[in-house]
Amino acid sequence: MNTKILPPSSSAYEYPLLIKRILTSSQRFEQENEIVYQGSRRFSYAQFNERVQRLANMLTELGIKAGDTVAVLDWDSHRYLECFFAVPMIGAVLHTVNIRLSADQILYTMNHAQDDLVLVHDDFIPVVESIKDQLETVKGYVHLSDGQGEASSLNMLGEYESLLMLASPDYDFPDFDENSVATVFYTTGTTGNPKGVYFSHRQLVLHTMNMLTTLATNNPDPLLGPGSVYMPITPMFHSHAWGVPYVATMLGIKQVYPGRYEANALARLIREEGVTFSHCVPTLLQMVTQSDEARETRFNGWKVLIGGSPLTTGLARHVMEMGVEPFTGYGMSETCPLLSLTRITSQLASLPIDEQVEYRIKAGVPTGLVDIQIRDAEGRALPFDGVAKGEVVVRTPWATQGYLHEPEKGEELWEGGWLHTGDVASVHPDGYLDIKDRIKDVIKTGGEWVSSLDLENLISSHPKVESAAVVGVPDERWGERPYALIVSRSGSLDAASIEQHLAQFVAEGLINKWAIPKTIRIVDDIPKTSVGKINKKYIRSEIF
Amino acid sequence: MNTKILPPSSSAYEYPLLIKRILTSSQRFEQENEIVYQGSRRFSYAQFNERVQRLANMLTELGIKAGDTVAVLDWDSHRYLECFFAVPMIGAVLHTVNIRLSADQILYTMNHAQDDLVLVHDDFIPVVESIKDQLETVKGYVHLSDGQGEASSLNMLGEYESLLMLASPDYDFPDFDENSVATVFYTTGTTGNPKGVYFSHRQLVLHTMNMLTTLATNNPDPLLGPGSVYMPITPMFHSHAWGVPYVATMLGIKQVYPGRYEANALARLIREEGVTFSHCVPTLLQMVTQSDEARETRFNGWKVLIGGSPLTTGLARHVMEMGVEPFTGYGMSETCPLLSLTRITSQLASLPIDEQVEYRIKAGVPTGLVDIQIRDAEGRALPFDGVAKGEVVVRTPWATQGYLHEPEKGEELWEGGWLHTGDVASVHPDGYLDIKDRIKDVIKTGGEWVSSLDLENLISSHPKVESAAVVGVPDERWGERPYALIVSRSGSLDAASIEQHLAQFVAEGLINKWAIPKTIRIVDDIPKTSVGKINKKYIRSEIF
Repeated sequence: MNTKILPPSSSAYEYPLLIKRILTSSQRFEQENEIVYQGSRRFSYAQFNERVQRLANMLTELGIKAGDTVAVLDWDSHRYLECFFAVPMIGAVLHTVNIRLSADQILYTMNHAQDDLVLVHDDFIPVVESIKDQLETVKGYVHLSDGQGEASSLNMLGEYESLLMLASPDYDFPDFDENSVATVFYTTGTTGNPKGVYFSHRQLVLHTMNMLTTLATNNPDPLLGPGSVYMPITPMFHSHAWGVPYVATMLGIKQVYPGRYEANALARLIREEGVTFSHCVPTLLQMVTQSDEARETRFNGWKVLIGGSPLTTGLARHVMEMGVEPFTGYGMSETCPLLSLTRITSQLASLPIDEQVEYRIKAGVPTGLVDIQIRDAEGRALPFDGVAKGEVVVRTPWATQGYLHEPEKGEELWEGGWLHTGDVASVHPDGYLDIKDRIKDVIKTGGEWVSSLDLENLISSHPKVESAAVVGVPDERWGERPYALIVSRSGSLDAASIEQHLAQFVAEGLINKWAIPKTIRIVDDIPKTSVGKINKKYIRSEIF
Repeated sequence: MNTKILPPSSSAYEYPLLIKRILTSSQRFEQENEIVYQGSRRFSYAQFNERVQRLANMLTELGIKAGDTVAVLDWDSHRYLECFFAVPMIGAVLHTVNIRLSADQILYTMNHAQDDLVLVHDDFIPVVESIKDQLETVKGYVHLSDGQGEASSLNMLGEYESLLMLASPDYDFPDFDENSVATVFYTTGTTGNPKGVYFSHRQLVLHTMNMLTTLATNNPDPLLGPGSVYMPITPMFHSHAWGVPYVATMLGIKQVYPGRYEANALARLIREEGVTFSHCVPTLLQMVTQSDEARETRFNGWKVLIGGSPLTTGLARHVMEMGVEPFTGYGMSETCPLLSLTRITSQLASLPIDEQVEYRIKAGVPTGLVDIQIRDAEGRALPFDGVAKGEVVVRTPWATQGYLHEPEKGEELWEGGWLHTGDVASVHPDGYLDIKDRIKDVIKTGGEWVSSLDLENLISSHPKVESAAVVGVPDERWGERPYALIVSRSGSLDAASIEQHLAQFVAEGLINKWAIPKTIRIVDDIPKTSVGKINKKYIRSEIF
């Protein structure tokens, strides 16, 4: 298209979107606001800003230059936040190492990301020592410690705090291309090696601005505002703690970093530091609200953004009765992550808790600058009618542009110019997303997609069913048909009674008749993965 | 710098920042929210969205293509808002014609911008008729009318509403380079022809996101949120009504477009439509709050962003007593315009009205993504100590990259890679800007800059002074010295008494001794410009 593009004045400043701009913005706010570590160490924003400059000088003195990669293995800390800024601001790449991976996988990611320098906390020295001889690109280590520090066999260039104090407090952060890679981290599937996703300065700045806008305006009572106090309960190595540390810093509000997650300590920090906003998976919300310290804690005014797994109605209701305000977000590592968030319209706000809950547990409404479609197996966009189910595909300025060093996987992710989330959902006319299943678990039968999760829920509503797992198996006539494994609660349960139970839902039009499993097996238990999810891959491999 | 830049997957979607994204975002909100014209015509967002698509088809059918320029001469209307979106979204350029210019200047701007199509309201048909034979690029006109419409000698291609209803309601807006020019408008100085400033899609999207963030988080009680009702009282041809129509649309809130400004009608709309947020110059705030309709109106909860001229303490206090909450913004046509905005910190919020007013009338604190410096005559950056005065220079992603077709003026604007605002200010340690003067009016004497406005205020504090004007005149020894024209209130006033009056401020250290005018003339009146400002250019020309 022949749009009008004018050459800028030769002196004009182009203003690349760089992470340093987020830090500049934070300096316009109340400088006495604090960044707190574990309730013990406290830094004003003025101090934080100085420490970021010291860290930049320290990294430079350790030989790190633009294009190099700095790996961090730490719990959630002020140090990690400093790295969120200083590392990309000198033009280097921050690798937030997923410390929950096995030693082998950590080794794989550190070699794959080509880490040059590693900042490692006491608690992770053993795992790094166990792989250090196989690390191909690492030139040295910096020691992160909350105490005296541990002796180690690693080539330690110094201890973080000591090196920081030796470094100059002034650093003039340079300009460079806004498309420069700022961060990289790894996402794991059930098969193969972890895959590296990466985000540019431009992407992180836009994600930050959009998330701030969303958190501040999505609801009559903002999730985040100038008086908020923020504490992450999603690890900083996981999608930059959902990007909120950047948002909170841009807004210049008080931030609390809890170190290693421990339910009682988290509840105590919420109480003692006056935390108003956090984000976590449902399990952690449950652990914190059921901890001993929770009994001493008033949770009123604590807003929690839930993601990772679905929030159940029961948990949502339970925590709302305690004063917690739960919201649900949806996204993935590949999308930086934010795609959608609970929106409480004026109409919803006036509903009683019980009815609001139904909206709070849905996957939210797409935020600004997120284009979304749901598509059937042929790639056709389906209507947003709350009924049609299809794969969620998205476009947004903050989606990874591929997988690190694996172009063919990037092409698969972006097939047809849309990022394929692998999730199957319906979208309601009011914009709310209902995530139904993973596309690899959905059962394609009789020209329709049946959610294995929906079917498991329907089967589980039978009074004698303890739990159920459903997978699709190939079927000559219908493409696929469901295959169900069921654990009985009482013992006296047979396939016919399950078929009869499901027949009522066919009669009600909730499912079609092909959705009734072809095979129903009563079993003693259901194969699970190491994190307790149903291992459908294993079940399928056992059947075929 | 060798930062890491990775090639995207060949299928990956790059997501240019285009104005159509603002419209998509608005569709996620409450679709029954209204866009109201003069309290009589009402459109839901769903209707608005359809009308934007119809307008795109209508423009295409009238021969407009990417790169063409569409001029609009209208009062603030739903039509104008539709043009804000449809024109740039088809890749064309929207020229928002400054209808306050003389016919000659309007002619100059329309030829200079190379307008292809002109949308003209009844009220502006006479002026366009008077210049139509000299318009060099215009191919046709579309008639905007609130009534029966007027007959005219223009080559009318049709009436807006009729053409809209004939056009198809579906338009698939294309992607193109985010640096494509979206809008152009003209800024006037005291000399020479108006200068064209222009903004790209990227610039407007970033300005919109940043302004939304700022309005939503700058204060404990947000200026704009999901429940707000917006009505502009700054014309849409003037810096896109400060960019707020884009912000309000992105947020999907109710918007009220008042047509031609009339104080009583504006007050009535505020009352009847429940307006919560507006922006205007101080004069309009005064007119609206002193109108007859104001007596029937409760202004509680009406937040008003003031810009253009300084808000006086008196007016601020007066309107605050009526329930209005005034804020001050600073910016200029060249900067899209937002650079800074009043920030009420928790500390300020707790102050009594009288003390808050002092902050509300300052020029605000720079917003996110705005880099700011104040510089002395040698271009050195000065400290933010509330005392040092220098020219405000800025960098921001939404600054015009030059003046249309006038590269040499663009280089002057951007000298040294910073945009020169031409304003002299001090910056307080808390970030607040205090605009002191225009740099061309500041008096450079004895190595310091003396604000002519400060000096006028000090002189005017003499009980016998009615008004004063101060300009700088060349001085061999001191560079410049002040020259004062004073209108006496009572008649019995001489230069010596003014000198004596000013001597106390020298003693107090408020001004230095060179700031006492070398020449003090008591005059009958002070030369003013057509808009009532002191004509310093004329005064200087009379002296030299």
